[in-house]
Amino acid sequence: MKAFVIEEGSGLDRLALVERPVPEPRRGEVVLRMRAASLNYRDLEIVRGTYHAGFALPMVPLSDGVGEVVAVGEGVTRVAVGDRVASTFWQGWIAGDFEGIERAVPLGGPGPGVLAEYVRLDAEGVTRVPDHLTDAEAATLPCAALTAWTSLVAEGGLKPGDTVLVQGTGGVAIFALQFAVAAGACAIVTSSSDAKLEQARALGATGTVNYRTTPDWHLAVRELTGGRGVDHVIEVGGPGTFARSLAAIRTGGQINVIGYLGGKSTEINPMEILFRRARIRGIPVGSRDSFEAMNRAVAATGLRPVIDRGFAWTEAPTALRHLESAQHFGKVVLTF
Amino acid sequence: MKAFVIEEGSGLDRLALVERPVPEPRRGEVVLRMRAASLNYRDLEIVRGTYHAGFALPMVPLSDGVGEVVAVGEGVTRVAVGDRVASTFWQGWIAGDFEGIERAVPLGGPGPGVLAEYVRLDAEGVTRVPDHLTDAEAATLPCAALTAWTSLVAEGGLKPGDTVLVQGTGGVAIFALQFAVAAGACAIVTSSSDAKLEQARALGATGTVNYRTTPDWHLAVRELTGGRGVDHVIEVGGPGTFARSLAAIRTGGQINVIGYLGGKSTEINPMEILFRRARIRGIPVGSRDSFEAMNRAVAATGLRPVIDRGFAWTEAPTALRHLESAQHFGKVVLTF
Amino acid sequence: MKAFVIEEGSGLDRLALVERPVPEPRRGEVVLRMRAASLNYRDLEIVRGTYHAGFALPMVPLSDGVGEVVAVGEGVTRVAVGDRVASTFWQGWIAGDFEGIERAVPLGGPGPGVLAEYVRLDAEGVTRVPDHLTDAEAATLPCAALTAWTSLVAEGGLKPGDTVLVQGTGGVAIFALQFAVAAGACAIVTSSSDAKLEQARALGATGTVNYRTTPDWHLAVRELTGGRGVDHVIEVGGPGTFARSLAAIRTGGQINVIGYLGGKSTEINPMEILFRRARIRGIPVGSRDSFEAMNRAVAATGLRPVIDRGFAWTEAPTALRHLESAQHFGKVVLTF
Amino acid sequence: MKAFVIEEGSGLDRLALVERPVPEPRRGEVVLRMRAASLNYRDLEIVRGTYHAGFALPMVPLSDGVGEVVAVGEGVTRVAVGDRVASTFWQGWIAGDFEGIERAVPLGGPGPGVLAEYVRLDAEGVTRVPDHLTDAEAATLPCAALTAWTSLVAEGGLKPGDTVLVQGTGGVAIFALQFAVAAGACAIVTSSSDAKLEQARALGATGTVNYRTTPDWHLAVRELTGGRGVDHVIEVGGPGTFARSLAAIRTGGQINVIGYLGGKSTEINPMEILFRRARIRGIPVGSRDSFEAMNRAVAATGLRPVIDRGFAWTEAPTALRHLESAQHFGKVVLTF
Repeated sequence: MKAFVIEEGSGLDRLALVERPVPEPRRGEVVLRMRAASLNYRDLEIVRGTYHAGFALPMVPLSDGVGEVVAVGEGVTRVAVGDRVASTFWQGWIAGDFEGIERAVPLGGPGPGVLAEYVRLDAEGVTRVPDHLTDAEAATLPCAALTAWTSLVAEGGLKPGDTVLVQGTGGVAIFALQFAVAAGACAIVTSSSDAKLEQARALGATGTVNYRTTPDWHLAVRELTGGRGVDHVIEVGGPGTFARSLAAIRTGGQINVIGYLGGKSTEINPMEILFRRARIRGIPVGSRDSFEAMNRAVAATGLRPVIDRGFAWTEAPTALRHLESAQHFGKVVLTF
Repeated sequence: MKAFVIEEGSGLDRLALVERPVPEPRRGEVVLRMRAASLNYRDLEIVRGTYHAGFALPMVPLSDGVGEVVAVGEGVTRVAVGDRVASTFWQGWIAGDFEGIERAVPLGGPGPGVLAEYVRLDAEGVTRVPDHLTDAEAATLPCAALTAWTSLVAEGGLKPGDTVLVQGTGGVAIFALQFAVAAGACAIVTSSSDAKLEQARALGATGTVNYRTTPDWHLAVRELTGGRGVDHVIEVGGPGTFARSLAAIRTGGQINVIGYLGGKSTEINPMEILFRRARIRGIPVGSRDSFEAMNRAVAATGLRPVIDRGFAWTEAPTALRHLESAQHFGKVVLTF
Repeated sequence: MKAFVIEEGSGLDRLALVERPVPEPRRGEVVLRMRAASLNYRDLEIVRGTYHAGFALPMVPLSDGVGEVVAVGEGVTRVAVGDRVASTFWQGWIAGDFEGIERAVPLGGPGPGVLAEYVRLDAEGVTRVPDHLTDAEAATLPCAALTAWTSLVAEGGLKPGDTVLVQGTGGVAIFALQFAVAAGACAIVTSSSDAKLEQARALGATGTVNYRTTPDWHLAVRELTGGRGVDHVIEVGGPGTFARSLAAIRTGGQINVIGYLGGKSTEINPMEILFRRARIRGIPVGSRDSFEAMNRAVAATGLRPVIDRGFAWTEAPTALRHLESAQHFGKVVLTF
Repeated sequence: MKAFVIEEGSGLDRLALVERPVPEPRRGEVVLRMRAASLNYRDLEIVRGTYHAGFALPMVPLSDGVGEVVAVGEGVTRVAVGDRVASTFWQGWIAGDFEGIERAVPLGGPGPGVLAEYVRLDAEGVTRVPDHLTDAEAATLPCAALTAWTSLVAEGGLKPGDTVLVQGTGGVAIFALQFAVAAGACAIVTSSSDAKLEQARALGATGTVNYRTTPDWHLAVRELTGGRGVDHVIEVGGPGTFARSLAAIRTGGQINVIGYLGGKSTEINPMEILFRRARIRGIPVGSRDSFEAMNRAVAATGLRPVIDRGFAWTEAPTALRHLESAQHFGKVVLTF
């Protein structure tokens, strides 16, 4: 079979298409024939070597994919040959609290990823996906959708009438907007592009702010909430956003730190956390259990992930460059 | 001013229209000119004397109403003259846990109710209502809507993709259906009337069961969930429903005991609670804080309460008889 | 190796000591040399055939045991040879919500149990135990201690100053008493034996009621709380206890249905659930994640399980008869 | 009567002892004859004019006190003449979520404080205190104890076996230590004084670190937890502590931002929040409902607040200077 691996070198040229043997499932494992994968900003950083941690090379990249189960090992009952399943980002985080992170391993670094024709995974590390989604759509769920879901629903207790501040229009952001709308909440989206804000409105955003033309966007956001402030923030972590997010929340509002963008240090006055009674938390994607709850929500509401653009999987380097250009709205996907 | 009071006697004839002085607000109080009220089954039982507790008579009945603030006492800043506000069922339950029930007092028994042209309440015991609602619609919120909201949202953590079993088509039931739909959840409604089930479908119910033609309705409900069982039950407490509700939930499902209908003892095997890992709780309407969160949800989603029929407030006895006939779908209201 | 199995027949005579091959660990599995086991009422019912469900025979009984890891299969990193570990009751319930029960399997029925010299388990289905405990003490943890912990701590949010009503002096009851004391809460214990109540006081119970001499024990319990009612009940489910438990709680109090004793149907008026705003839930032991949190608590507080009596493991039938006599206070254990 | 007021001027000399009329209770109010008060760092900053906000002067300072109810206004049933009660820091925050802060008013700025012989408060803004406490001890509860309680218990869900990192030995810190011990948790205390660390050990601290001799105290704290990290941090906000607290928590650990000390901006890398899955929140003291739950805990466990030193109330300026010197261990109190 064919697979991409990251080799020594620099930049996106590190990606090489190689030949590998088709894996065999051991006890408790499954083998998938991949049908689609999706890109996350983390993948881009890992491929070009700018991620905060290094991994042993060569390594197959990418964490998010959908495939068909083509073989199951001894003792596997969770899924069967023929099932269409997605990979879970954290192999080994089934449910509950995240403390198991020491044992759990993310796909696509350090665990081997899904950018290959066949992938072997633990049977516990895959989950069936909603029927109404195309393969490409389903491939967007493992990281981006689940991060938005964990932030707002599993951890945030989103309820009808809440207001969500969504920074930008990347993968997590657009899912956060869609989940907010599906749950009867209001969403306010920020972007530097009026065209993207227009698209966000078409998806149901009730308020939009162009942070280029309105640098004090936190004041505009507050005003859109009648002065009360937002209940939830999807904080993607660009420079200087954190302090403004803190200024945009209601008393007791929640800030979900999810971003891999621009992980630079920032000045924070802890007194601001105190006076706002802010609730801040880091969101490391989510558990398989949350993934399955999210799938029920996607199925029940008929939600369709927003795909910015699709590429053939062998064009992965080109697709990563597209992601790097930050022109996307929603997810960039690869099909096999 | 004119007011209805319950006097000694029997049945609905105990209701008498009398003349009373217009109340003056003391420190911390407000006076409302009533515009609309709504009926609950509890009101019916109190008026006709079949409620489980007796109250000192004469007493003005009814807990749910909307009025305009026409006078405020010393120190009142929460609301101002001219505001349109609803009464809260529990005077004195502002927020948090319900243990304050010993101090909190329900309107319309034992506290004096709202079936009068002018009503005096503590300023903490009223709340503004969403602008897009008519007075009659807003008058349906204090008990029925808030009971559904507390069950599903404040206590139940309803999320998109959950399934809610709604028993019947009374006031609480229809609000539960509407909140489920607004929150991206699925709702299954039971009724003895196919016509009502048709109406429920029009409001967004994804499944319906006629419990007259399908006495083992719990099996039908399970089947509608693909065998998994429902996440939430709005249990109105008719004879024999509890055991079936227990059989209709998923492992770990929640049963909200809300009903005043047919409060008869029933056989329960505690082992069933154990094996289902059921979570069962009594829902005593809700706090003012929950009321305000619900109002934000009603405003954000544009939800319109379902009014079965409206009457002039002086026709209260006729309206109560209509409620008694159990022909209604949604709420019965009175306008001033 | 030697093992006990349940064979066809009736009563405790169904238990036979047989010869079996020592198991080999497969990928992801471990093999334990058993050191101690403990008895639960459920085991008794399974052995004598009075349990609500039947299982395929012959079957090794008992769910709770402690052993030393003597072999590990491919890919096992969680534990190592030489580790002292306990079995988890639910094989397959790692963490989070209990819905996985359909997939999770209890040891000792239907899954093969631990009453054997060597036992093979999934590596995910064992957990290390606190160092300060003897093998016999550690063997009491998997069901009884974890059921008490889940009820009061993981689900109940027990906090200092709460009051816990503990019914009886069996295994779960005594652990509930000990956890309550360790957490700064008050515990009230009921029993038909003044001697046992004396022992409960020695363990820190702040109140005791002899339900034989005080049949209306719920009134006595209320009085012990100054009329407020208890926050938590460990409801073991004897005939008629449920209704009294409901009468003993504070408004909003919690009832944990845990019992396998006397699982008879009982009359409940759902209105009582409503008026008390009771929160009732079935407690199916607990997850491995909770087990590990409990172990940290046992280690930090130096808690020592109360052992009623120890037997050699080959005396299992005698030990079960002792349990059947209901004379015990705390746990009955077997050592290898 | 006599009262202290803050007048225009600078430093602690702004405090003047003046004559004022004894207040009369209006409807819903009570009048207390003060018996004891306690000092918080916030009071010091308000008196000397270094608090982040200014208040209308002259103003009676101090938020925390205990007195005897000597008069009640119309309609007051919560307390009676003769009751010993404490003031609540937030007048108007009864229970539930903190969003009401816009309406709630802290005593001692901007609301008039308790450093006077007689004080008039809303009947809802006082609470009875445990009988076993002296007046001086009870006067320490409203801010310091409740902040520790809210952090660890009401918000933090502290449970036996958890580990709490307590920064310093001020009022909140020592209560946090005591609550941790009472709840079966472990406490690690930091200080620059070995003598104070010795005192902390005497109160039950299981680990101590001198941050002067061990500047990388976060590493020492981690080591004390066997490398796992702490579950809870009481973050008092000195320069540079926040980043170290973040490095001291376990994955998913909680940081409670409570401090008024050294509210300077600090560099934080939001990625650290993400990778630790930190849960950070501002703790604004607590609600009256939490105060009452805490009182039950104090009563049940027999906890005695640690009083550093007592002064006559007329010596308030001297007492504030003592607090300013930062030599205290526990609370500084004033008695009337």
